[in-house]
Amino acid sequence: MERPRHQGMAKNTYMRWRLPLVCLLWEVAMIVLFGVFVRFGPEADAHWEEEKQKKNITSDIENDFYFRYPSFQDVHVMIFVGFGFLMVFLKRYGFGAVGFNFLLAAFGIQWALLMQGWFHSFENGKILIGVENLINADFCVGSVCIAFGAILGKTSPIQLLIMTLFQVTLFAVNEYILLNLLHVKDAGGSMTIHTFGAYFGLTVTCILYRPNLEQSKDKQGSVYHSDLFAMIGTLYLWMYWPSFNSAVSEHGDAQHRAAINTYCSLAACVLTTMAFSSMLQKKGKLDMVHIQNATLAGGVAVGTSAEMMLTPYGALIVGFISGIVSTVGYVYLTPFLESRLHIQDTCGIHNLHAMPGLIGGIVGAITAAAATEDVYGKEGLIKAFDFTGPYQTRTPSVQGGFQAASIVVSLLMAFAGGALVGAILKLPIWGDASDENCFEDDIYWEVPEDEEGDVYHMHNPDKAASP
Amino acid sequence: MERPRHQGMAKNTYMRWRLPLVCLLWEVAMIVLFGVFVRFGPEADAHWEEEKQKKNITSDIENDFYFRYPSFQDVHVMIFVGFGFLMVFLKRYGFGAVGFNFLLAAFGIQWALLMQGWFHSFENGKILIGVENLINADFCVGSVCIAFGAILGKTSPIQLLIMTLFQVTLFAVNEYILLNLLHVKDAGGSMTIHTFGAYFGLTVTCILYRPNLEQSKDKQGSVYHSDLFAMIGTLYLWMYWPSFNSAVSEHGDAQHRAAINTYCSLAACVLTTMAFSSMLQKKGKLDMVHIQNATLAGGVAVGTSAEMMLTPYGALIVGFISGIVSTVGYVYLTPFLESRLHIQDTCGIHNLHAMPGLIGGIVGAITAAAATEDVYGKEGLIKAFDFTGPYQTRTPSVQGGFQAASIVVSLLMAFAGGALVGAILKLPIWGDASDENCFEDDIYWEVPEDEEGDVYHMHNPDKAASP
Amino acid sequence: MERPRHQGMAKNTYMRWRLPLVCLLWEVAMIVLFGVFVRFGPEADAHWEEEKQKKNITSDIENDFYFRYPSFQDVHVMIFVGFGFLMVFLKRYGFGAVGFNFLLAAFGIQWALLMQGWFHSFENGKILIGVENLINADFCVGSVCIAFGAILGKTSPIQLLIMTLFQVTLFAVNEYILLNLLHVKDAGGSMTIHTFGAYFGLTVTCILYRPNLEQSKDKQGSVYHSDLFAMIGTLYLWMYWPSFNSAVSEHGDAQHRAAINTYCSLAACVLTTMAFSSMLQKKGKLDMVHIQNATLAGGVAVGTSAEMMLTPYGALIVGFISGIVSTVGYVYLTPFLESRLHIQDTCGIHNLHAMPGLIGGIVGAITAAAATEDVYGKEGLIKAFDFTGPYQTRTPSVQGGFQAASIVVSLLMAFAGGALVGAILKLPIWGDASDENCFEDDIYWEVPEDEEGDVYHMHNPDKAASP
Repeated sequence: MERPRHQGMAKNTYMRWRLPLVCLLWEVAMIVLFGVFVRFGPEADAHWEEEKQKKNITSDIENDFYFRYPSFQDVHVMIFVGFGFLMVFLKRYGFGAVGFNFLLAAFGIQWALLMQGWFHSFENGKILIGVENLINADFCVGSVCIAFGAILGKTSPIQLLIMTLFQVTLFAVNEYILLNLLHVKDAGGSMTIHTFGAYFGLTVTCILYRPNLEQSKDKQGSVYHSDLFAMIGTLYLWMYWPSFNSAVSEHGDAQHRAAINTYCSLAACVLTTMAFSSMLQKKGKLDMVHIQNATLAGGVAVGTSAEMMLTPYGALIVGFISGIVSTVGYVYLTPFLESRLHIQDTCGIHNLHAMPGLIGGIVGAITAAAATEDVYGKEGLIKAFDFTGPYQTRTPSVQGGFQAASIVVSLLMAFAGGALVGAILKLPIWGDASDENCFEDDIYWEVPEDEEGDVYHMHNPDKAASP
Repeated sequence: MERPRHQGMAKNTYMRWRLPLVCLLWEVAMIVLFGVFVRFGPEADAHWEEEKQKKNITSDIENDFYFRYPSFQDVHVMIFVGFGFLMVFLKRYGFGAVGFNFLLAAFGIQWALLMQGWFHSFENGKILIGVENLINADFCVGSVCIAFGAILGKTSPIQLLIMTLFQVTLFAVNEYILLNLLHVKDAGGSMTIHTFGAYFGLTVTCILYRPNLEQSKDKQGSVYHSDLFAMIGTLYLWMYWPSFNSAVSEHGDAQHRAAINTYCSLAACVLTTMAFSSMLQKKGKLDMVHIQNATLAGGVAVGTSAEMMLTPYGALIVGFISGIVSTVGYVYLTPFLESRLHIQDTCGIHNLHAMPGLIGGIVGAITAAAATEDVYGKEGLIKAFDFTGPYQTRTPSVQGGFQAASIVVSLLMAFAGGALVGAILKLPIWGDASDENCFEDDIYWEVPEDEEGDVYHMHNPDKAASP
Repeated sequence: MERPRHQGMAKNTYMRWRLPLVCLLWEVAMIVLFGVFVRFGPEADAHWEEEKQKKNITSDIENDFYFRYPSFQDVHVMIFVGFGFLMVFLKRYGFGAVGFNFLLAAFGIQWALLMQGWFHSFENGKILIGVENLINADFCVGSVCIAFGAILGKTSPIQLLIMTLFQVTLFAVNEYILLNLLHVKDAGGSMTIHTFGAYFGLTVTCILYRPNLEQSKDKQGSVYHSDLFAMIGTLYLWMYWPSFNSAVSEHGDAQHRAAINTYCSLAACVLTTMAFSSMLQKKGKLDMVHIQNATLAGGVAVGTSAEMMLTPYGALIVGFISGIVSTVGYVYLTPFLESRLHIQDTCGIHNLHAMPGLIGGIVGAITAAAATEDVYGKEGLIKAFDFTGPYQTRTPSVQGGFQAASIVVSLLMAFAGGALVGAILKLPIWGDASDENCFEDDIYWEVPEDEEGDVYHMHNPDKAASP
């Protein structure tokens, strides 16, 4: 399928040595670092039998595996199928969307296990991992998948791997500042994952601005069946988001509550998305772009507050608003960002992750500040915000302040990090495609040659008979 | 893609103000009602710490969340991906199938939380919700998705929302009569979900009879890849049905047993479906319609009895029979219903849900009536049928009688409710499409304009060169 | 869509009586055998209430259902969606891939429940089943799905059912020899499932060698969207593989550890697959065949050792190597096997299951032999390898020897069994297609007739107007 494009004239997209080199070197580095640092945590180690006796644990069901593994698998599906297929909507970039997402996530989770491990699970020179680390690694990579959405179709796999390396690193630093230094709550990652990931990606795409991108305008749309593939991604993200927001919450009521709040917010979000999608189109027709994306904003926007006593109606309100904001963003803000701020945001992550992420951070700050012993119970309040040790005198309103500050920190990290990474990716050595070859699988993938008559869904008996 | 159809001449399908109005008003109503009524149940509330001490619960793993959340997520997938994609088989109605299913289910679960909450979880003026409520809300909406199958392609989204509102209400009433007043068992919902939902939908479609529907006959079929998409729906329904039938069963053996019975029934059902699909076709070829649908009848038909001591071979027999009944129904009954009874059943829900649902109710009644202390154990029998309090003197045979009566009640509710809703939907103000525009996404959706040569799977180098 | 092929001239592929007869007879046999033999195990039986009291179990959460059901569902998805859709890559064999996989797996799990039940769960003349039996039945069928990959597109459904009958039987015998007589560990089935299944299938396809298969060469490739469907299969296999390898491990740390090891191995495998896929292609482009398959080799290759103290870096190394071996196999070995050894391996199972399965067996033997009390703890070591009863004097190094011997046993069983079954399938009475009709759904399936202009993604207004 060698099309007569000017591929390779303007840019050298030949990956044969560069991509393998990066993949193999980095994987070897992972093996060495894992060998030096990573070991099983106590609940995954064969010494668990002794551990159980020591800690007087009477049943294997108390192993954290049984509290979190089902949620882990749901999150895993969101990262690989959810994000992967959500981006398959482009007519000629399905392989790249799902394949590169696969590549960067597979690398990212390894590096995240290390980075987050050094910050959070480091004991006696070793990183001790368990199922919660796997979830957190998936979360961290989620922020990279989000950023990928902004630059989808415009970067080489090497650029994506480099971005992953840096973004995971910065994610872990930002997460450490928020969760440990500022001692804030962000179970579903409105700030750490969505706000950070989205503004990071938007900054990168701004720096990588392509003035002549309209040369590949014809490939930026979807076709009928690519929209259906994308709905697979959408629905898995939508359905499993309650698991996402509750996966690392405290055992018991917090995990339970986070799932309920998320369920409610997402349900409301679908209604307002449909309403505004129809309302903002002259002919009143629904737009698949909105249905695929804005219906998910409700999950993003309760990320921080889901494990708090947001209450079901509070969750509905958050979902209501975020569906509107996100849909309006797709209609009015995305064109504005592209034309005025030179932000070419392929998937519209500003509408799905950035704005709802900010809403999520703000809602989290307000919900925390409004917490009372009456609503949470005395012990419940302490447990919910971990007001123990050095933080036992912190009040809910102070907590709210720290929550709000965390939004700003995440934004600053995203802008600074995105600028740095954008500058690195701008170097002309990474093999990205020229403007007219963007959104085109043919550049990096062997694409099957299709002939008419060969495929059922286009079979035409008459033609087949007389070609 | 404005086709020169007579769209809008016969009917006004313009949704711009009507759809947003309904969505927004109803969502606001949900928020108000949730605000007044819905709160977290004790196991999702931050007071759970105190609750645990009061009830002497030693471990967080005793929280109902850990008993039911994995099953909940499976049920969630069935409702949104399972039903959504099962209906994608139509060549030009994929957006409508998966998108409208998404819309009605997202609204329905909110309304179901309220309706079912008032009947079952109402304490001191508040509805207290937990993971079991979420499952039950999904179940309730399942019955609407079933009814949607009968009218697929022939209704506007507003009609679907109105049907959802009424059907959820009636579902909750019927469920209350069955589970509380008649005190019957129906864990997998053969009666409450399938029999009720299917006959409700069939009554609606009968009243909405379109005499000139053959005008869109060319769009009622599938294409090769739409059949593959539909298989995604089929398989997720098939695989997760054991979770569906066990999701709200009693903790322990009942949940375990329900999963095993369902697994067995579904396996048997696949074999008889394949057998009869081949046998009833002159050339002996398999028909995707049967494989997509009749293979699921086994799950429907053990819905009531799955948590009982049906035994694995009993489950195989049920699956064996229901696969045959369902496949035969597709071949002979569906054309008959359409030509004689004016029932235009797009997805053939009569074969997949109505008849197998009836079988399920009957099998449940027989299995209950045949229960003995020998088989269940003394305590086991009491626990299985909840023969406690006012029901402690009820015998299995009386229980069987009540189970049988519940089938009749469900049918009556379905016919009466369906007639009422059908009459409402017949009003000419809801924006449904004219007969020649049925089964056509173009009416309510922005459909991407596809040009030849633009899409890989139809690329033809020669043509691209000389158009 | 009656194509002017010579279908039926060379071979009689008429299924109308043969397929139904086999399906119905066999299902009746299942019902009879289940009636005689299969009952609920104690944890799924209504007597569980009494059992709990007898065994002093205080909570229903101790029921094995809650330890294993989420993993069971993941495995279930892998068998039906994972394997089913992985094989949809062929342009004209999507129905056959997913449909026949459905048929053989649905039959196979029933027969596996019996066969494995007689060997492992037989008490007082009854097979007592629980959730672990369901998982093991799915595992057993997994080996048939693997073998199906080698003969995909070249066999009739009857041949597949016959192969399933025999292969499940031999699987159960081999499994009994390994797990019970040799007392080896193989939680993820590198030997019992992958090595056995793959070499069984390769032997069968070798015996069924078709010298003129190049007559259907044009149908052996993929098209753009069939590759995307196949990625659904790939990703579900990849994501849920940690559940596969941990599903039947001991409660607690072993299950936890198996999931972590598998997660790590698979992540590493993606990187080396991508590297070698690009490196081995002249233009440096990635090949979807590799991405769809070789990325999974890491899961196969830690199947035996996942529950052992392989450690995360050990898992990375295994994944690293198996990704390379598998990708190199696709490029160099598959053509060699076809041209020299007459092994026509449609899906390349030699690269995905056979070689990685052998690696898995070897890694398992080494890891077992290297086990020490220092690493496992005294009790941990006994528990990990079940060094109890008659095996309490067995040392790790002896265990390693038995593990290695098990690879050889599995290979011998596969070759002998495959030869036997291949010979049976070669009889000219089973209705397989002629060489030019291989990889063609039209033979066994009703295929929708597609006309141009009828489908959105090929709509061309001009053409539709003047055909």
